[in-house]
Amino acid sequence: MQAQGKHLTTIWVKEVNNEIVQVIDQRHLPHHLVIEDLSTVQEVMTAIKEMHIRGAPLIGVAAAYGMYLAALQAPAHHPESYLEQAAAQLKATRPTAVNLQWAVDQQLAVMRQETSLAGKIKAAYQQAHRIREEDIANCRQIGLHGVSLLEKISLQKKGERVNILTHCNAGWLACVDFGTATSPIYTAFEKGLNVHVWVDETRPRNQGASLTAWELGQHGVPHTVIVDNAGGHLMQHGLVDVVIVGSDRTTARGDVANKIGTYLKALAARDNGIPFYVALPCSSFDWTIKDGLKEINIEEREASEVKYISGLTDEHDCKRVLITPPDSPASNYGFDVTPARLVNGLITEYGIYEAHETSLQGLKKKLPAG
Amino acid sequence: MQAQGKHLTTIWVKEVNNEIVQVIDQRHLPHHLVIEDLSTVQEVMTAIKEMHIRGAPLIGVAAAYGMYLAALQAPAHHPESYLEQAAAQLKATRPTAVNLQWAVDQQLAVMRQETSLAGKIKAAYQQAHRIREEDIANCRQIGLHGVSLLEKISLQKKGERVNILTHCNAGWLACVDFGTATSPIYTAFEKGLNVHVWVDETRPRNQGASLTAWELGQHGVPHTVIVDNAGGHLMQHGLVDVVIVGSDRTTARGDVANKIGTYLKALAARDNGIPFYVALPCSSFDWTIKDGLKEINIEEREASEVKYISGLTDEHDCKRVLITPPDSPASNYGFDVTPARLVNGLITEYGIYEAHETSLQGLKKKLPAG
Repeated sequence: MQAQGKHLTTIWVKEVNNEIVQVIDQRHLPHHLVIEDLSTVQEVMTAIKEMHIRGAPLIGVAAAYGMYLAALQAPAHHPESYLEQAAAQLKATRPTAVNLQWAVDQQLAVMRQETSLAGKIKAAYQQAHRIREEDIANCRQIGLHGVSLLEKISLQKKGERVNILTHCNAGWLACVDFGTATSPIYTAFEKGLNVHVWVDETRPRNQGASLTAWELGQHGVPHTVIVDNAGGHLMQHGLVDVVIVGSDRTTARGDVANKIGTYLKALAARDNGIPFYVALPCSSFDWTIKDGLKEINIEEREASEVKYISGLTDEHDCKRVLITPPDSPASNYGFDVTPARLVNGLITEYGIYEAHETSLQGLKKKLPAG
Repeated sequence: MQAQGKHLTTIWVKEVNNEIVQVIDQRHLPHHLVIEDLSTVQEVMTAIKEMHIRGAPLIGVAAAYGMYLAALQAPAHHPESYLEQAAAQLKATRPTAVNLQWAVDQQLAVMRQETSLAGKIKAAYQQAHRIREEDIANCRQIGLHGVSLLEKISLQKKGERVNILTHCNAGWLACVDFGTATSPIYTAFEKGLNVHVWVDETRPRNQGASLTAWELGQHGVPHTVIVDNAGGHLMQHGLVDVVIVGSDRTTARGDVANKIGTYLKALAARDNGIPFYVALPCSSFDWTIKDGLKEINIEEREASEVKYISGLTDEHDCKRVLITPPDSPASNYGFDVTPARLVNGLITEYGIYEAHETSLQGLKKKLPAG
């Protein structure tokens, strides 16, 4: 989408040297736009683990390019064990996002079919490129399907402002372009609909306040930042028409693992009769599991992410500040699971599906095998 | 309670000069313990408005002392209009906390009965002292009644850790001593119960992370700071046994206005079969209204409280940092309303009452008139 007056995406191969992958280092947003060069799979792992890049779809694309870089680094004689090890390490960087596992497995499979290292490198490069292109196309389709929901609300409200609440960043910064949850919003905005987005700041890492607010603002979409505590009050007072969030992993029956706090917004939406939608590419489904609460491993991150917060001082330095007593312990679960019963629909690149097993089996049948 | 190794309260008359009221300036916690002298009603207004002191019960006590200081400042000839004006200005400092209105009205009433200014000053001083003492006694009683709930859970869990989740600060820092929501916890802790508190950080002003965590830590009570987004996940996984929060205003049918985000925790508690209690002195009831959603005026505060956050830098300076794009708008509602249907009980100084009109009418009959 548009940022700093030009079209930007989150990840691409460097124009003058296709052995380097470039990404936006999102840790510096919203204050600085920093481009980072990644030239080894280890650098990709660090970028994923330390959240230079984040968002389930983007992690998948980055992991695909990571396997391409691993192939470039692999020894010519028996590269397989190097690639298998890199794959295992890559998969371990973030346990919740299913796209990461999926992309790495896709790369391993395609490389196994090539006997020469040069063949493996070429196949990994081409597939990474294809996964990136597919992500863009999928996000575009999610927008085209999802915009119908916003058009319907706009009609019902006779053109009055349509208020969408979103949590975390499921925007183009979480993908390559368009985003998942934001794609229907960008599409509606391009069509001239009167849309406005309530942006949950999304503690502890503030992806809403720092990323979603930035990308919406850069593209010119009206929005307002709110604390994570505010959504229930806004819904009680008719100030939210629809909730759209992303997903890190969705089960075969439609349970949704997404950024911690999503479940609370789903409860408030249900209590106030407001539709709650999840936008996701089909690569975010984990068809092997049903019960998200029991079967999804929820990542626990460092307490320091809760105890410290980073931002720009009045002197324009980026600094972290301690916001708790130094000795108080803190706990930091990264995700929660919203049960399917609270989800009104799943917006995918194949259309909008109900969040239950039968409906999703129908979707699964449409997917290419593998 | 205990802080820095001694017994502290939030507000008292200066020992060597009873025309000065001293308070803890809570803006500096948890990093520095700063005592502030207040010698005019205008200073009390600033302290309330800019949240040097906060919490419905404490605001009530401070307003009572504010009216005493106003009496000291009033002209000897016709002091009434000065006092009426001070009262109106004091009431306007925070619109949601009903204790503020209540304490100011009590002071006006008692001063009207005195003809001389000296008589008014003495009456206001004595009543402020009495309101302070009553707050301490009420909080103590809330603890003695509320501890029964924790003892019951402890028995059911055969002495295993009892996990209480609380939102914002309804601790002794919100009152004079003991607190409301924390009083049952301190009482349980003194009795040797195995208690642990999940402390919601409570954005945007972080009263949980900066005040509740500090006071629990200073008193030695086991606790863990969590982001406001985490409570639902903890409840889904059996890690919360009971929720106890405070209240800024409670209606005659038991709707509870409390810090923004309380409603989301009440929804999650209900969805997971976890009891949700509100602890409050009876001065926090507004008997004149029933429907909290329609009838309670929810304060909107400045956007800067959302866009900036303050804390201690690694160089030990207190600084604010910007955490959103500079141009993104932000909205900042201070409170939300939890409907009575989500409240399992109200813990008051007269005992635990159900949150419905009939039960609360019974409580009202026990209260002294006026």
